[in-house]
Amino acid sequence: MPHQNYQSCIDACNACAVACNHCAISCLMEPDVKMMARCIALDIDCAEICQFAAAAMSRASESSRLVCQACAEICRLCGEECAKHRMEHCQQCAQACMRCADECSKMAAMA
Amino acid sequence: MPHQNYQSCIDACNACAVACNHCAISCLMEPDVKMMARCIALDIDCAEICQFAAAAMSRASESSRLVCQACAEICRLCGEECAKHRMEHCQQCAQACMRCADECSKMAAMA
Amino acid sequence: MPHQNYQSCIDACNACAVACNHCAISCLMEPDVKMMARCIALDIDCAEICQFAAAAMSRASESSRLVCQACAEICRLCGEECAKHRMEHCQQCAQACMRCADECSKMAAMA
Amino acid sequence: MPHQNYQSCIDACNACAVACNHCAISCLMEPDVKMMARCIALDIDCAEICQFAAAAMSRASESSRLVCQACAEICRLCGEECAKHRMEHCQQCAQACMRCADECSKMAAMA
Repeated sequence: MPHQNYQSCIDACNACAVACNHCAISCLMEPDVKMMARCIALDIDCAEICQFAAAAMSRASESSRLVCQACAEICRLCGEECAKHRMEHCQQCAQACMRCADECSKMAAMA
Repeated sequence: MPHQNYQSCIDACNACAVACNHCAISCLMEPDVKMMARCIALDIDCAEICQFAAAAMSRASESSRLVCQACAEICRLCGEECAKHRMEHCQQCAQACMRCADECSKMAAMA
Repeated sequence: MPHQNYQSCIDACNACAVACNHCAISCLMEPDVKMMARCIALDIDCAEICQFAAAAMSRASESSRLVCQACAEICRLCGEECAKHRMEHCQQCAQACMRCADECSKMAAMA
Repeated sequence: MPHQNYQSCIDACNACAVACNHCAISCLMEPDVKMMARCIALDIDCAEICQFAAAAMSRASESSRLVCQACAEICRLCGEECAKHRMEHCQQCAQACMRCADECSKMAAMA
């Protein structure tokens, strides 16, 4: 499988997309939604780029590194925002984002 | 996590999307691509609906069951086509599609 | 172009995806976000299925009718929710959803 | 509408996604599919990033410029490959890709 080299990065992207989608909808149900608006907006972007990065790597796309670089930046933005909020869904999402940012940065740096 | 009930279906969708994207691109590199054209077309559809279903369930969407029903049908079409071809990527994809079709059918049938 | 028959439905799907994404983020900036939570959740689902439907039709996919049927249902749910809110972004989104639901229903009913 | 500034770039992204999906599936039906393999692979990547860029701009996302920069690069790769083939679907796709690359580059360069 040509995509096996990418497997841990694909897994991190899929896990991050799930965490971001879950965080977005959980934030929407928080009593103080207003405070969560930027978190929700970043979660949606991050879930979508993570799914695209996972798809590109699964296809061993020649654009994988380029996509992973953009994905790493968006994951970092999202993870930093999530880390500011004490709710479990935000803390878990922050961790998933940071792990995905690391995996994607490594992928983007590959020769 | 509200999406925990959905976790095994989300995992099956993500695994199927990876298998379909990998199969699509591997089929493109086969000596007889012509014979793989329908497989490639179905792989692309199936990868996209699986990613959408995973996202909808991660958001505990009220449309999850509806989406999973459509996903199950597309997985079945794709799995049946893949099963006709003896290449490992097709056989693995057929299995991922059938497992995802089963998980999505169960989800769609939930009360 | 094989997808020309689908052009008006593809256009309606793309317009609806734009309207839903715009409505989601505009709802997030409203003073009373809490009241808009279901609208935001439906907007996100609807934007994603509309983009998938547009892609499937552009590929003249054999699953186009199946996808358009699911898309029509989600557009209707989203359009009905948006129609309840007096903000311009919600009213415009309701119109885009209803137009897309009609186009997708026609596509789904094709022989 | 906050996304109005982005409207011509959103339109270019949606038109490019349609052209790429149409080109991918039309290439699959060509007598010499083998020769079209890279074109098909790039078309799929390009369709997906264009849809993501359109969605991000519709949400006036703070990552719009970053996404548009990646989108412009992938559009250029895809447009250059399409331009090598004389079929109408490839020539039309090359044009849509180059137009989208230009619009996205402008967006990425905005202050």
